[in-house]
Order: sequence, then C-alpha cells, then structure tokens
Amino acid sequence: MRLFLKKGLGLLLVVMLLWLILTSYITVAEAAPPAKNVVLFIGDGMGYGHLTLGRIFKGNALTVDGFKYNGTVSTYPNDPVEKWVTDSSAAATAIATGVKTYNSAISVDVNKKPVETILEIAQKKGKATGLVTTTRITHATPAAFAAHNVDRDAENEIAVDMLNHKVDVLLGGGKQHFISKEQGGKREDGRDLIAEAKKMGYTVVENRDEMLKVTRGKLLGLFKMSHLSFEIDRDSGREPSLAEMTKKAIEILSKDKDGFFLMVEGGRIDHASHIHDGAVVARDVLAFDEAVKVALDFAKGRNDTLVIVTADHETGGLSIGGYGQYNFEPEVLKLQKNSIEEVIAPKLTPDNIKQVFSNYLGIEDLTIDEMILMLNAFKEKDKNPSAVVNAVADIMSKRALLGWTSTAHTGADVPVMAYGPYAETFTGHIDNTDIFKLMVQAIGLKIYR
Amino acid sequence: MRLFLKKGLGLLLVVMLLWLILTSYITVAEAAPPAKNVVLFIGDGMGYGHLTLGRIFKGNALTVDGFKYNGTVSTYPNDPVEKWVTDSSAAATAIATGVKTYNSAISVDVNKKPVETILEIAQKKGKATGLVTTTRITHATPAAFAAHNVDRDAENEIAVDMLNHKVDVLLGGGKQHFISKEQGGKREDGRDLIAEAKKMGYTVVENRDEMLKVTRGKLLGLFKMSHLSFEIDRDSGREPSLAEMTKKAIEILSKDKDGFFLMVEGGRIDHASHIHDGAVVARDVLAFDEAVKVALDFAKGRNDTLVIVTADHETGGLSIGGYGQYNFEPEVLKLQKNSIEEVIAPKLTPDNIKQVFSNYLGIEDLTIDEMILMLNAFKEKDKNPSAVVNAVADIMSKRALLGWTSTAHTGADVPVMAYGPYAETFTGHIDNTDIFKLMVQAIGLKIYR
Repeated sequence: MRLFLKKGLGLLLVVMLLWLILTSYITVAEAAPPAKNVVLFIGDGMGYGHLTLGRIFKGNALTVDGFKYNGTVSTYPNDPVEKWVTDSSAAATAIATGVKTYNSAISVDVNKKPVETILEIAQKKGKATGLVTTTRITHATPAAFAAHNVDRDAENEIAVDMLNHKVDVLLGGGKQHFISKEQGGKREDGRDLIAEAKKMGYTVVENRDEMLKVTRGKLLGLFKMSHLSFEIDRDSGREPSLAEMTKKAIEILSKDKDGFFLMVEGGRIDHASHIHDGAVVARDVLAFDEAVKVALDFAKGRNDTLVIVTADHETGGLSIGGYGQYNFEPEVLKLQKNSIEEVIAPKLTPDNIKQVFSNYLGIEDLTIDEMILMLNAFKEKDKNPSAVVNAVADIMSKRALLGWTSTAHTGADVPVMAYGPYAETFTGHIDNTDIFKLMVQAIGLKIYR
Repeated sequence: MRLFLKKGLGLLLVVMLLWLILTSYITVAEAAPPAKNVVLFIGDGMGYGHLTLGRIFKGNALTVDGFKYNGTVSTYPNDPVEKWVTDSSAAATAIATGVKTYNSAISVDVNKKPVETILEIAQKKGKATGLVTTTRITHATPAAFAAHNVDRDAENEIAVDMLNHKVDVLLGGGKQHFISKEQGGKREDGRDLIAEAKKMGYTVVENRDEMLKVTRGKLLGLFKMSHLSFEIDRDSGREPSLAEMTKKAIEILSKDKDGFFLMVEGGRIDHASHIHDGAVVARDVLAFDEAVKVALDFAKGRNDTLVIVTADHETGGLSIGGYGQYNFEPEVLKLQKNSIEEVIAPKLTPDNIKQVFSNYLGIEDLTIDEMILMLNAFKEKDKNPSAVVNAVADIMSKRALLGWTSTAHTGADVPVMAYGPYAETFTGHIDNTDIFKLMVQAIGLKIYR
C-alpha cells in the first residue's frame, strides 16, 4: 500500500511537471519571438499628400506602397498653447519615449524631467544603436532618441549628450555643434567634440568616401556644418545619400549579436515643405523611400527585423491640386534643377530673373504678373529675407497646381507602415506614443508605461 | 497471391480516396468562405484631414478608428485633361466597376461603353441591393452603382436607369428627378417615376416616420427635392439621419437569404468642403461615422459581413492648422449653429452682419477687417453669387485655423478600412479600382477584369 502510494505520488509529480513544462511552453509559443532588430524611419513633415506627390513624381509605386500593414497616427502634443499641432521635438519625444510633451522638449516630459527613450532601452538590452539623418544630427528628431533637453535649440548641449550616449553610429550634418568657434563652429565652451569622439573610439568621417571605407566599430559622420543638402542639390561624390548612410549603418550595426535599433530620418522633407518647394519635397521623399528600400531588402533576407515607416507630423498642408482647379502638373516640377532656397534664390537679382527662371526652373514664358511678383519680392527683401524664396515657390506651386495651407506644420493624421515581426501591430488608428509602446513590445519587453 | 493483390489494390484505392478527400478539403479550407454581405461606405471628399477634424470635434475616437485593417487608395481618373484629380463620378465608377474612366462618366468606360457594376454582379448572385446617400439618389456616387450614363448631369435619365435596376432599397434625396415639371420636379418627359415605382412594387416614403414603419419589400425613400440637409441643419423629426437610413436598409436587405450589397454615401462632406464650411464638414463626418457604427454593430454579431469604409477623393485640401500658425481652434467651429450656405448666408444683409454672426456663429467680436470683408462680399454678390458664403467661411476658417488649398477636389491618397471576412485584403497601398476587385473576391467570385 505504501509502495503504491509512493508510486502514485511519483506519477502525480511527473504529470504535474509535464503539465508545467507544457503550459509554460504554450505561453512562450503564444507570443511571437521578439524582433532582434528595429529600423524606424521618420519622414519629417511627411503626410499622405507627400507620399502621393512622391509616387506621381516617380511615375511608379513607392517602396512604402508595398508595405502590407498600415495605420494612421495622431500627432498632437501636450502643449499648453499649441494644443493640436506638434513640432518635431514633441513628436519625436512621443515616438522615442511614449510620452506626450510640450513643443520644443527633447525627451523630457511636461515637468521637464528626462524620460527613457527606446534607444536607451535597446542599449540596456545590449543592442547596438544608430541615428541617421539628413538634418544636423543634433536636430530635434535624432536628438530625442539620444539626448534629454528642455530646449531643442540647445544643440551644443545636445551634441555632448548624444556623444555621452555612446550611440554606435551617428550619421548626418551638424559639425558646427561639435567644434568650437575658433575652429569655425558654434561651440562657445571651446570643446572639440570631434577630438573627444576619436578618444572615445569613434571613427569620424566627413565625406562619402571616408564613410564607405568604415566597416565596423563606432562611427560618427558629420558631412556638413549644418543640414545635409537637399537631395536635388546633393554633390553625390562628396555627400552620401540617405540610402547610403542607411546601408552603412545597417552593415555596421548588424554585426552586434544582440541586434540593433536604428532610427533614420528624412529630415528635410519638412524644410522643403515649410518653403513650399514641391520639386525638392518630391526628391527628398524619393530619397527617403530609397533608404526604406535598403532596410527592407535587409529585413527580407531574414525574419528578425522590424521595419517601421512613419512621420512626425505633416508640414505645409500640401495637396495634389489646388487653386480651385481639378488638376496637377508634375512636369512643371520635374524641370526644376535645384532647391529654391539654397541654390536658385541666392542667384536671383532683379536683373537676371528671366535668365535664372529659364536656366534653373525650365520656365521660358514668365508672365508679366509673375515678373511683378518677383520684383515686389525684391522690394520686400529687406523687411522679409525669405520674400524672394517665397515668390519663386509661389510661382512654381501655382504652375504645378500644388496646394499649400501653411508655412507651418499641420495636425492631420500621418501614415505608419510596418514590415517584419510584430508588423501586424502597426494597424488601425494609433497615437504617436503607441509607436514607442509597440516597439518596446516588439523587442520583447512588457509595455510598462 | 491474387487475394493479396486484390486486398492491396483495395487498400490503395481507399488510401487514394482518402488522399483526394483530404487534399480537396485542404484546398477549400485555404480560401475563406465568401462574405455573404458587403456594406461599402463612401465618404465623399473625405481625406485623412477630414477624419482628424471629425475626431478632434468629437473629442473622442471615431468608429472608423477602431478598424484593424487600413490602407491608402490612389484616386486619379483616366481623364484626358484632368489627369490627377478625379471627380466623384469617375471615382465611383472605379470603385463600382474596377475601371478607370473620364471625369463625369457614370459606369461607362473611356469609350463610353457601359461596364458591369458590383451592384449588378451582386444581383446576379441573387443578393439584395441597396443605395443610401445624403445627396440626391441620382447624384454621381450612388448613380455609378446602378446606372450607366456618359454624363453625370443627366440625372433625369439616371433616375429611370436606377429604377430599372430594381435596387431593393434606395434612400436619399433627389425627388425632383422622379417627378415631372408639372408636379414641381425637373422631368421634362412628363413621367411620374414615383407612381411607376409604386406599380413596380416599391413602397415610397418621403419622411422619417414613414421610413421607420417599412420593414420589408422594395423601398424608395426620397426625403427632399434635391440633396438632404447638412447634418447641422437637419430637422431630425422629418429627415432621417444617415445612420437611421443605414439601419433601415440593413434591416430590410438582411432578410434576403442570399445576402446583400449596400453602398452608403456620406455625400455632403464633399459639399461642405467645397465651401470651406468646417463646422458642417465635422458634423457630416460624424454623421457618416455613426452610420458606419450601425453597419459595424450588425457585422460584429456575425461572421459573414464585410464592412468597407473609404472615400472617392479628398475635397478642399483641408488641414488642421494653417495660415502659418501651429494651432487649431475647434471651439470656434463648435459654436456655429447652422450651415453657412443653406441657412446663415441667406439670412445675411449688409445691415444685420453683427447680429447674424452673434446669433448663428457665436462671434461677438467681429473685427473691422472682417466687417470690411463682409461688406465687400455684398458688393461682389451680383457678379459672384457665392461671395457672401465664401466670406463667412473664410472668417470662420481663419478663426479656427482650419486650412484649405482649393475649392475643388485634390489628388492625395484617401483612406480605406475594412472589417469582417476578407478585411485583411484591404491593406497597404491600393488603387480605387482594387476596391471593386477585392469586393468581387470577397463575395466569392474570381477577379475577372
């Protein structure tokens, strides 16, 4: 009898053990394995109209059109005054930390307290990290992933903070915030962060060829003093494209056995949209889309990489068509050779208007009204330095029938698309703070905020 | 040995039979069972900005925000002149037939040949059909599902065609195209289509109470001579809401054992957007969203109903925020009591401006500039009948910081969302013609075009 009991007890124990193993296995099996790598793309200022513009300009489907999972994203900040329209720093903070904050905050909350970012969380998990942008690397969007500051304009401080974060790959512009005034930069503290970075083990590169040679280790690429060039103006021999920077970042970061987190920003879509320079917007959207393709090609060869594409807000209130007309003339924009702000307007004088319009904008039939508009802009230039830029952009937009509601950001929902593990969670209508939460979940952590 | 062979052969036969049954079962199991019912919602002119406006105005999530499957939709027509911006008829034709056509075509192709519509296909499958709208029932969007015409403006002809289509439930406005001039309508052929409809077996109703009483059979509801009222102006005792019409249509159509196809249009979102009347847009978006809820509630109680929500195009280039400012003032719009076009502007004279602005728009502090704008509009009224409407809309939009790029349609992608069987096919970037193809697939037919 006692033997029987013993045997029975033993059997019971074995059954219980088996049951425990089985149920724990089921629990694990229910949740998909975490995403080892996350590549987050942010098209700064890229609304739905921007994507349509890019597609029409390209004459073919965009890479982002191929994403199966889509959603819409609310972008409003937690700002006491600007209640419904976010700036890039509050939006980037929401995406990077899951916390809504005031416009101009860099990953600090409304009480100005730092909030942990997805990049910091990824580092804690042992992942390599990278930030790639076409703006200054210290600009709002990249800054919010690897710095904390009450003011987005404190870019000298932000440069120090970002370096202290030991992000593995930093590629973009903004050299001016890494070198002292004496060196031609903007730092007033006399520090040479490039020298400091080298001491920390970074390879520092300043042009495309130098960048392409680096294959491992920590990499800091600062390709211009301020923002990188608009794609339309880029010297492709000297300045890497967003796609090239993305490819290099993935090449280096993917060597980490624990995986990586990479944020890639198409940062100047926003700038061109503020100015209403449609041709430049279109080309920067396409450059962004090509960078997405690089990450997607990487992800498609494996099943451990989540690629997310979104925007921080819409800029300009861009519409395909406008001015009460049922049409759009993309061909007008295709003839434009450079950006209005950085190349064309600086060449214009009251005496060479027709010549510059012919040479750079493909316009041979400037009307009297357009000529008057340009001449008035020159009259206004002393009071309003951007008057000439605005006048050219206005003429181009009206000819192309590209509509704009604002020189600022707007508050409409922006797109989100995803590919890879957990991509199916990026559907429906979500808030920008949800992007943080979904990324945290995707890398295998509980949503804790 | 022969016995063994016989037995072996018998076994082989049984195995083969089992294998056949098994594989055919697998093949059937792979494709989901077809959707018995399809409810297609079209928000006329409803872009992404319109949804954001509706959500902010409501102060809460929309019903459409809850859809899990989303996509973006290209809307361009196949028009020789208006290449990138569609009108409602070409867009509705694309959605109803899968064929791109010229602006103003009603389910005829570019060669003006009729093309079979999803409603006609559903009828062939024995399904009940219905069309519900807030516009005239003969207007472009509903027309393209149950009529074929080279010209959308031929609404008298379209009324005949729609009636000949024997659509089970037709609810909307447009009585004027069903009765003769002698009866106060617009028909020049002297026909009384209402009398004809009754002979065909239709119950004809002209107000909400009459409609609510009908529970079966063919139903024609014509609640106004032209379009139904904007939601903000609607006499809820007399005119049914879009949600009420949708509920009634589903109640009747769902009695068909073969299922049903129903198209519901929020048709006046577009009209209010053409005029830039933001408060009216917001309320019509919310009325549309409530109609979606009716269908979703029906669909959630079963697993055979596909609900699709989309738009034909964007109207107005609406943006949340505008005029170079980082803000939006929804409270301004909430104080508006009626539509500018149909109620407020007709009340205005040069002498009662301040009073009407106070009574109907909640504006007590009209500025001198705004007063001058209004007075100039009255001066212009003879040349431009909509001058007063435009001036009021302009004042309201600027106060609310609601941006517009156009009084026409724009060409940006529009939303699509879906719930129910085959909802997962409505994701990623698709063309408006794909909506037809996906609906055909969902009801269990091959994509044949």
